[in-house]
Amino acid sequence: MTARFVKWGVIMKKITSRTNPRLKYARTLHRSRQRKKEGKFLVEGVRLLEEAVESENSIETIFFTKRLLTKARGQNLVKECRRRGSECLLVPEGVLTSLADTDSPQGIIGIAPIPLWERNDLLTGPGLLLLVDRVRDPGNLGTMLRTAEAAGSAGAFLSVGTVDPYNAKALRASMGSIFRFPLQLDCNLPALVAELKKIGYRTLAADADGEVTYWEADFSSPGALIVGNEAWGVARELLDLADARVKIPLSPGVESLNAALAAGILLYEGVRRRFIAENYQG
Amino acid sequence: MTARFVKWGVIMKKITSRTNPRLKYARTLHRSRQRKKEGKFLVEGVRLLEEAVESENSIETIFFTKRLLTKARGQNLVKECRRRGSECLLVPEGVLTSLADTDSPQGIIGIAPIPLWERNDLLTGPGLLLLVDRVRDPGNLGTMLRTAEAAGSAGAFLSVGTVDPYNAKALRASMGSIFRFPLQLDCNLPALVAELKKIGYRTLAADADGEVTYWEADFSSPGALIVGNEAWGVARELLDLADARVKIPLSPGVESLNAALAAGILLYEGVRRRFIAENYQG
Repeated sequence: MTARFVKWGVIMKKITSRTNPRLKYARTLHRSRQRKKEGKFLVEGVRLLEEAVESENSIETIFFTKRLLTKARGQNLVKECRRRGSECLLVPEGVLTSLADTDSPQGIIGIAPIPLWERNDLLTGPGLLLLVDRVRDPGNLGTMLRTAEAAGSAGAFLSVGTVDPYNAKALRASMGSIFRFPLQLDCNLPALVAELKKIGYRTLAADADGEVTYWEADFSSPGALIVGNEAWGVARELLDLADARVKIPLSPGVESLNAALAAGILLYEGVRRRFIAENYQG
Repeated sequence: MTARFVKWGVIMKKITSRTNPRLKYARTLHRSRQRKKEGKFLVEGVRLLEEAVESENSIETIFFTKRLLTKARGQNLVKECRRRGSECLLVPEGVLTSLADTDSPQGIIGIAPIPLWERNDLLTGPGLLLLVDRVRDPGNLGTMLRTAEAAGSAGAFLSVGTVDPYNAKALRASMGSIFRFPLQLDCNLPALVAELKKIGYRTLAADADGEVTYWEADFSSPGALIVGNEAWGVARELLDLADARVKIPLSPGVESLNAALAAGILLYEGVRRRFIAENYQG
């Protein structure tokens, strides 16, 4: 059943049945394949939806609970979505929970279009491009994207075999970067690295057995950083193509760093080098 | 019921009841308060237990399944635990799952004593000491400990209000560092910072509003790094006590970095500076 009611002078709708077609559609977006097919994804929680609104993402639908409206922040978010033309559907707590990824959802979930970026959107700016090779953990991927944006990277190319960045866990870890930070999915990284080299990019691969410690590596701009899978690192083919394989030194007894953390250390070495190049040289 | 049987020439026991007292005891160790009272914690999975064995932790008891023994790595682990005097209890899959934190446990869970460190164990070595102020996310804490060990830190002091590092998620994120890396729990950090300053430590606090960008800060040794809560950062009192408040620059639009990632960037700046000090100066 869909009931209509008026709030803040606008018509809203209320869903009470768990088998409502909009809800059923939303639930299909928990699957990566369906997200790709539809070009849509689920955005859960106040903070992420606020980031979506701020980034001018045209959120298609929001499902929210009465409880959300007891807080000014929740009310403002619903008003803002309504003003921008989102379909606003009030649902009972249980229905929202049935759609949520987290155990204690914050009372709002939206359906948003997957942002579309042109390849050229990524080939600008001074920061290191991020090339992600088969990273499997969504938290790691989200953290990498958040950090790359913070480090001034122009965007990330994600390989075939990298986890879907529109996965709920990846979204949470990205802390909203997903709405602003240009991405290209399902990339053939060896072909990309070859092309980047042709147009003058210097490519560095993160590699525990790398030949040069990162602080002694050449970070000249424009550059790209390749980071690899949590267990296997960067693929052999990419290591061979890269201009340099850089390592982060580890104390004896420690086998590796967390993949997102290693990416962050290298991305920020790039930030530090640009600062030095801009302020002390030339 | 506890049945005895002989395998590899040694007596082992088999538990079939979920209400067996050893199992009931083990289950109580899911609670932080109980871990503290007993000085014991649960170690789940092959990898973490291997790290425990390598670090000479005297694992008291292991619960394992038949399935584990189908793999050479699992068999070797059980043999090694037996050789070192652990009580080895074969349990049905369902019983192991009832004790596990993860949804698909790897067939083995141990009870290990919480390592005890002296305060002085932490006041050695050239790396930055890590002072953790009220970090709430166990994954972040575990990653911080793993990274601090990798960066040559001598140990970490955890404030009152920091999540328990013997929590299952923190243990997984620590990747075994928990068995090697000296810790002091429930610390009064303001008192500690005052003492460290007296004995010549330079204390840096990670602070988004810090007065100096980290690559321009003084990292002279011996030093300590204070990192704070995911949402609120380092407590005001500690910021005021620190010798310097250092910031990591962020691109416009990005509010913050992941707490463990920020800690890692600063810890590795310390590594880089020590390398420079040792190789290019003096």
